[in-house]
Amino acid sequence: KSVEVRGRMHLDTATYDSDVTELGNATALRRTRLGMSGKLDDTWSFQIEYDFAENGTSANDVYLRRPLGEGTLTIGQVKVPMGLNELTSSNAITFMERASNSNITADSRRIGIHYAQSIDNLLFQSMLYTRGIGGERPSGANSGSDAPMGIAGRLVFTPSVGENQLLHLGVSVAAEDRGDFNALRYRDRPEVRPADIRLIDTGTIADVDSTLKFGLEAAYQSGPFSIEAEYLANNVNRDGNPDVTFDGFHIQTSYVLTGEKRGYRGGNFRGISPNGKGAWEVAARYSQTNLSDGLIVGGEQSNITLGLNYYASSNVRFMANVIFADIKDGINGDEKPTAFALRAQFAF
Amino acid sequence: KSVEVRGRMHLDTATYDSDVTELGNATALRRTRLGMSGKLDDTWSFQIEYDFAENGTSANDVYLRRPLGEGTLTIGQVKVPMGLNELTSSNAITFMERASNSNITADSRRIGIHYAQSIDNLLFQSMLYTRGIGGERPSGANSGSDAPMGIAGRLVFTPSVGENQLLHLGVSVAAEDRGDFNALRYRDRPEVRPADIRLIDTGTIADVDSTLKFGLEAAYQSGPFSIEAEYLANNVNRDGNPDVTFDGFHIQTSYVLTGEKRGYRGGNFRGISPNGKGAWEVAARYSQTNLSDGLIVGGEQSNITLGLNYYASSNVRFMANVIFADIKDGINGDEKPTAFALRAQFAF
Amino acid sequence: KSVEVRGRMHLDTATYDSDVTELGNATALRRTRLGMSGKLDDTWSFQIEYDFAENGTSANDVYLRRPLGEGTLTIGQVKVPMGLNELTSSNAITFMERASNSNITADSRRIGIHYAQSIDNLLFQSMLYTRGIGGERPSGANSGSDAPMGIAGRLVFTPSVGENQLLHLGVSVAAEDRGDFNALRYRDRPEVRPADIRLIDTGTIADVDSTLKFGLEAAYQSGPFSIEAEYLANNVNRDGNPDVTFDGFHIQTSYVLTGEKRGYRGGNFRGISPNGKGAWEVAARYSQTNLSDGLIVGGEQSNITLGLNYYASSNVRFMANVIFADIKDGINGDEKPTAFALRAQFAF
Repeated sequence: KSVEVRGRMHLDTATYDSDVTELGNATALRRTRLGMSGKLDDTWSFQIEYDFAENGTSANDVYLRRPLGEGTLTIGQVKVPMGLNELTSSNAITFMERASNSNITADSRRIGIHYAQSIDNLLFQSMLYTRGIGGERPSGANSGSDAPMGIAGRLVFTPSVGENQLLHLGVSVAAEDRGDFNALRYRDRPEVRPADIRLIDTGTIADVDSTLKFGLEAAYQSGPFSIEAEYLANNVNRDGNPDVTFDGFHIQTSYVLTGEKRGYRGGNFRGISPNGKGAWEVAARYSQTNLSDGLIVGGEQSNITLGLNYYASSNVRFMANVIFADIKDGINGDEKPTAFALRAQFAF
Repeated sequence: KSVEVRGRMHLDTATYDSDVTELGNATALRRTRLGMSGKLDDTWSFQIEYDFAENGTSANDVYLRRPLGEGTLTIGQVKVPMGLNELTSSNAITFMERASNSNITADSRRIGIHYAQSIDNLLFQSMLYTRGIGGERPSGANSGSDAPMGIAGRLVFTPSVGENQLLHLGVSVAAEDRGDFNALRYRDRPEVRPADIRLIDTGTIADVDSTLKFGLEAAYQSGPFSIEAEYLANNVNRDGNPDVTFDGFHIQTSYVLTGEKRGYRGGNFRGISPNGKGAWEVAARYSQTNLSDGLIVGGEQSNITLGLNYYASSNVRFMANVIFADIKDGINGDEKPTAFALRAQFAF
Repeated sequence: KSVEVRGRMHLDTATYDSDVTELGNATALRRTRLGMSGKLDDTWSFQIEYDFAENGTSANDVYLRRPLGEGTLTIGQVKVPMGLNELTSSNAITFMERASNSNITADSRRIGIHYAQSIDNLLFQSMLYTRGIGGERPSGANSGSDAPMGIAGRLVFTPSVGENQLLHLGVSVAAEDRGDFNALRYRDRPEVRPADIRLIDTGTIADVDSTLKFGLEAAYQSGPFSIEAEYLANNVNRDGNPDVTFDGFHIQTSYVLTGEKRGYRGGNFRGISPNGKGAWEVAARYSQTNLSDGLIVGGEQSNITLGLNYYASSNVRFMANVIFADIKDGINGDEKPTAFALRAQFAF
């Protein structure tokens, strides 16, 4: 048995140039996590991590894991295998927030059984999943409600493309039967969090039978330069109403001025470890999300984000983002707010 | 000073054959704990452990401890010394849930002063206790309410009965003055948790002056075979109404197919440590609980549970339970639901 | 990277001689903390600590820290530099609760940027701060609310006064613009917590534009004897109403019967480490707090507290306090309750 403790702080501050919706200057703990991970015996390993930021309690990875066959089996709450941006750790994402389409469409963490296996340049991840910790449980008057059940798969291909280069191609699909939890709501903030309001919002969509999600990923890296793009679509199957489909994409590029490169392992990007006295990175992203389809008018969000990151060490990072948001048919109609945000981050 | 970290995950899934009350298929984190324990100096040791399962926050053992005379003194929140099943760690109980009578009648954790001492084959545990962490505190409009105060004692006798055998005989009593917290409610789930509903329920019993609880325990173990039985009764003394008495019992037997035996120490059973590549255990239990007496019709629950456990190592266990419940005068009258449940567990 | 775990339990019990307001006998976990601290790399260190007492979740110190110039820079949530009593750790305070004027007036922990530097016998601490974790954040209907912003400074002078003696002189000031969070409320318990009710209370004061706080500290120590005094005033600037000023002070003395002295470092007192088999300390305090000014009649509190502390080791302490409170114009008018309280404490 060997156990290590884990911790993380992401502290954000933002100031806004509001348009229609007033957005107040604010500082907020985005993440504060305490956890443990390690080996339980020769075969089994584990992790338990909780986020207590802003005095909430929210489970992150909570699992039991072992090698099985040529791959790895995980039982517990982990991320559903869909989306390069979602699957990249919040410690390693290039901008302060993930692209809006990724936030909205990818399922993040759910309880289930996950299996991952690599064969040469191919990685296959699959998961049978149900609800996430803390919600959608049969109880009290709803004791007869069956939990949602989904199945997801992600295939990543990383063909050899020459020294110090990486080509990542991925496709994922996730099909979920909503069981007796048939109300869903999709909404998001403008890729910045301290003022806590979502400007696009479908409102509650009742009578959802199932969802079918689909994702395409591509990334290319050459030393300190990287570019990634991702498309995600969500077909929402409703019982007494026509289906609706929401989708979106992002494309981003980053360059590490000091020459280091983004890490990559297990189908996802990892952080940057400065070689010497610290690493500097510049980055830009365009993201688009569409939550309007048929009778649902949730709005559209098109954001341009510019980022500057300083890596003091592999555990400490400072980030600056400018977000130019363009909202159409949002909670307050059309608007174009701008945000300037800073993050102080450490993780171990 | 030496400190160790502690952790635990119990992840359950269940499917039901409902009868009257609808019970939905569900998966839930039964326990997710993070904690620390260790030595503060040559004399004093401590533990702090919290449960964050399903994003709640619930204190478990939180105490300061030292040797005193021939025994051990503990100050803080620990289990009231009553009931073999209750006092057996959730990591080591034979079935996924404790017997219903134990859940309902034993007080579990309370804040207080606990003293335990062993003399030859006798173990005596006693505790002066008040409320549990997180409830029953004088505040606001109830600032004048005195907290409950109780006193409990448990005597365990383990006469020598031959090599590789164990005979455990126990008796316990707990008397509690409810102070100004006079409303109590007794209720329980059908010995399985993912669908979170209690089928027997007294509703709120007002005007409770005091309770007097009484327990009898017996267990016999011979190598991999063990049998245990427990009876617990609770006399509820009411101010303006006649007293009521609720009681129940369970009897269970288990056999470790691979030959290992249940651990035993300090008056309680401990877990099973597999000798080689894993241990298999089969078990059966009958439990009965009666929450109906006088004017209170809380219902009766009689359950048969069959269990199969696999111990991958001393830290990792998988459990399967089938529960045949028989409810009389429950929240929805008489019904006989059946549940099939699985647990993945680790602890350290 | 090197990480240490941190923990703390303060368990209190109190019995009251109530006067007008009924105060029930009670036991409560005053603090139960779990945390981590350590070094992230050669430059940066950190701390994350949360309090889960009574099953709440409340952030304490959560920060990233490094040396900068001749001083120390801290980013995150720490204590605003104002008030000797507030800045003394709860593990090291002489009485079970801080003086009421300190509780009410000093800001305790806020998110911000803190810088401290020592030059010879002078220590200067400064902080630019905003809200505390868990409150006062723009969100939902209040998304346009700007967070409060304050700036504080504290200057401590410790002139050389001879061997085994200490003279501490301090002055602090804190100015805070309340942004769009303009409602404040000042209130306090009678320097004892188990029965959770505040006997003096201004009620909500609307239209607060800003506050200006001012503090004076003095302490003298000669071996096992120490005396400290502190005055704190709070000028509350209101938009459509006249300003109000609340103030208060405390004076306390303590003597360690076994000869040890209180630790002192970084402008604050630290705990007592017994030399041999444990240390005994006697102490007395008089505190006065005035929450009535102009149209606001929050009440006045004048308390005498007598204390006896036993330090079993540097990590374990037991405390006994008798508090003679004298309330004028409180929530239930004038009253003179008395409390007797005990604490069992460990920390590491």
